[in-house]
Amino acid sequence: MTTTSAQKAIQQAQQQFDPFLASFFDLLRIPSVSTDPAYKADLERCADWIVAEMSRIGFNHCRAIPTSGHPVIYGEWLEAGPDRPTVIVFSHYDVQPVDPLDLWETPPFEPTSREGKLYARGTSDTKCSVWANLKAFEAILETEGKLPVNVKFFLEGEEEMGSPSMPAFVRANTALLQADALLICDGPFNPEQPVIAYTRRGIVAAEVTVSGPDHDLHSGGYGGTVHNPLHLLGKIIGSFHDEQGRVQIPGFYDRVRQLDAAELVAMQETWQLAESKWEAGAGVTRFWGETIASRPERVTALPTLDVNGMGGGYQGPGTKTIIPARASFKATMRLVADQDPHEIGQLFRDYVLSFACDTLDIEVNILAEAWPLTMRHDDPVVEAVKRAHESALGRPAALVRGGGTQPSGGLFQRELGISLAGIGLGSGGNVHAPNEYIYEADLPTIIELMIHCYYHLAETMAG
Amino acid sequence: MTTTSAQKAIQQAQQQFDPFLASFFDLLRIPSVSTDPAYKADLERCADWIVAEMSRIGFNHCRAIPTSGHPVIYGEWLEAGPDRPTVIVFSHYDVQPVDPLDLWETPPFEPTSREGKLYARGTSDTKCSVWANLKAFEAILETEGKLPVNVKFFLEGEEEMGSPSMPAFVRANTALLQADALLICDGPFNPEQPVIAYTRRGIVAAEVTVSGPDHDLHSGGYGGTVHNPLHLLGKIIGSFHDEQGRVQIPGFYDRVRQLDAAELVAMQETWQLAESKWEAGAGVTRFWGETIASRPERVTALPTLDVNGMGGGYQGPGTKTIIPARASFKATMRLVADQDPHEIGQLFRDYVLSFACDTLDIEVNILAEAWPLTMRHDDPVVEAVKRAHESALGRPAALVRGGGTQPSGGLFQRELGISLAGIGLGSGGNVHAPNEYIYEADLPTIIELMIHCYYHLAETMAG
Repeated sequence: MTTTSAQKAIQQAQQQFDPFLASFFDLLRIPSVSTDPAYKADLERCADWIVAEMSRIGFNHCRAIPTSGHPVIYGEWLEAGPDRPTVIVFSHYDVQPVDPLDLWETPPFEPTSREGKLYARGTSDTKCSVWANLKAFEAILETEGKLPVNVKFFLEGEEEMGSPSMPAFVRANTALLQADALLICDGPFNPEQPVIAYTRRGIVAAEVTVSGPDHDLHSGGYGGTVHNPLHLLGKIIGSFHDEQGRVQIPGFYDRVRQLDAAELVAMQETWQLAESKWEAGAGVTRFWGETIASRPERVTALPTLDVNGMGGGYQGPGTKTIIPARASFKATMRLVADQDPHEIGQLFRDYVLSFACDTLDIEVNILAEAWPLTMRHDDPVVEAVKRAHESALGRPAALVRGGGTQPSGGLFQRELGISLAGIGLGSGGNVHAPNEYIYEADLPTIIELMIHCYYHLAETMAG
Repeated sequence: MTTTSAQKAIQQAQQQFDPFLASFFDLLRIPSVSTDPAYKADLERCADWIVAEMSRIGFNHCRAIPTSGHPVIYGEWLEAGPDRPTVIVFSHYDVQPVDPLDLWETPPFEPTSREGKLYARGTSDTKCSVWANLKAFEAILETEGKLPVNVKFFLEGEEEMGSPSMPAFVRANTALLQADALLICDGPFNPEQPVIAYTRRGIVAAEVTVSGPDHDLHSGGYGGTVHNPLHLLGKIIGSFHDEQGRVQIPGFYDRVRQLDAAELVAMQETWQLAESKWEAGAGVTRFWGETIASRPERVTALPTLDVNGMGGGYQGPGTKTIIPARASFKATMRLVADQDPHEIGQLFRDYVLSFACDTLDIEVNILAEAWPLTMRHDDPVVEAVKRAHESALGRPAALVRGGGTQPSGGLFQRELGISLAGIGLGSGGNVHAPNEYIYEADLPTIIELMIHCYYHLAETMAG
């Protein structure tokens, strides 16, 4: 019956594909850039548009809920019955900024088709997920009249700015978010080689400022007598790693979980499939930290500290003979289970402040924190996502470790304590860059994938 | 006779002050910003203006001489007789850039009088020197028909960009520049407490670039496996000094000349006169390197290394999770006798390149080099400058060590091997900054000072 129901919904989605696609275009045209306050009204307009669509297809209690930042969106369909699981379907409706705008070949909020690719900001990251779920639900409800699981559709509008409002919102709304499972719909999708990234690293982002004289000084008159902020900044940055690349902050590795032998073997196998593409993307021929651990371990199973930017003093052409008043750097640490981002932020702060001296001031600001996330291989949600790929593509998704960060996933895992899996639907490229696109041929597939996913969820979570 | 002649010329300058001042305004209106190629034609126009003035007052062979950069200006008056010394009067006609332009209260190239100050770029640094010398020569020639010494008036147009064309020009023109003495007319003038800065530090300016991946990488995908250029940059910068502030480059201090006891005592005495003003200008309350040597020694008798600026990666608001492709910093080293700028540049390069590794590329560029300069206390040119201050102000100039750099002075001293002294005429402030000014009341005084100076030179260098 399940297969029949899924097939009917898939047929319906195929027949309705033209109006379905028109609705994707409508969503892509709304410039929901969350980091730039200039787009605040567009975020609200985008939320209203999605709420209206949720209501139209039959969801209940659909609403945009204010937060300290951009609204979250909530809508539910809970009529599958008490014997069926309740699944939170989570994604985000905001997008990255579009600059540099002049590198876009067509306007970022005017979806344009070229050579099999649909170009617009948000096509792959991740309005495709919002749209494919809406259309999967719509097709199932139109053909079957009911969904195979109870659904709480929940979208945030601040993912691309580090989800600052989410921790407080989740903690304040545990009743609303009560569920049996969580499906995080975000990430890339490769129909040739489908994967489920079962780990995501956590993150701590920090900014350090070293301040000295109250104005830039002439180095001829004060050099050697006034402590130069750049010199101390260099000492701090230069001390973060040993020659091999190991982070030197005391306690940094204390809670890193060792991988067991089976996971190491599996990791190496899946890594080999992707290594040549990874190497090609690195832009270097010689790699770092090779004596510490294998590459996949360093990318996915070990924490890192990278200085992402630094600046101070004169950076123009030629020479300017100054002692600058201040200098600063930004750093991000990627965390793995069981590192606690708040604890690591504290260790970082303590370490940096250990360079304190009476001739310069050091200020440490923690800009963002997110927990690492690990999905269980035997989780029924993970199993459902695997089977959905097999049903839609004829091949299962491989479980691979991921090195990136999904801030809300770690938060949900800790605060709600429920089963979860991730599913990526962004089949295109240039995510976070100019000329973001998605492959048009994959658009029916991602709806199909989600339809299969909900029927498999009903099975794997039954009883 | 000398006193009478000087007094006549001074009276003449006083009587002619209004047209003299009009000519200063004309000179200040020409935007001779040497570092910015946009002003190239203005530099030539400024040179032409000065050449025409030199010719008008009776100098010979006046001309702008092309160099690889902006022209130098030369004119001579050699009719004082073979028994009189020949003096090169040296200054520069270029000025610093004016940015930030919006901080100027009146346009930088429209001289404007406010509350006793004349505001314009170049008023104090150092078109005052060009103008006061022209007017001193004009007044003497009008009243006496001859100068007390033979004069080669020589101006460069690249002082504010590190004098890149001067070494080659001086080496190629030793015959033209043959003389008994050199008077460097550049620097500040304080009629309340006149000084002669008898030392200037040399300089080496360098830029270091560390390059890694060929494009910025996502720190989630490559952190821990690709060497981050900022990390190595930090290690390099952080290693330049020990905790006390001593430069750690091997051999850096090898040629530093020890001061003798008498000079140390004199240095401390003159330093105390200026220390409160120096402290007020420092913008800090706690000083650096206090365990190494006294403040005046660190400012004038010891070399320094200051990183003047550095940058790399993301410096905007918030977080961007990248490993940047490259990072760079600029550093200047101030040198004291007998350090060789070329040798120090080589030591710097060797030291920085000792951080070479196979995962990152390091590039070192030396941007500028200049020798340190020391004037002899018993030099007759120094003596003449001292006496000129006494004649003009009723008090002699004190000999103090200086920590800044006068690139051409060290070059002349080494290449021409002649007596020399410096005389500062810039009595105002905001040099190299917005709203540069000179005190209007001091303008007649600096002409008077130069008139006295040439008569005293004739005396101190006689026979």
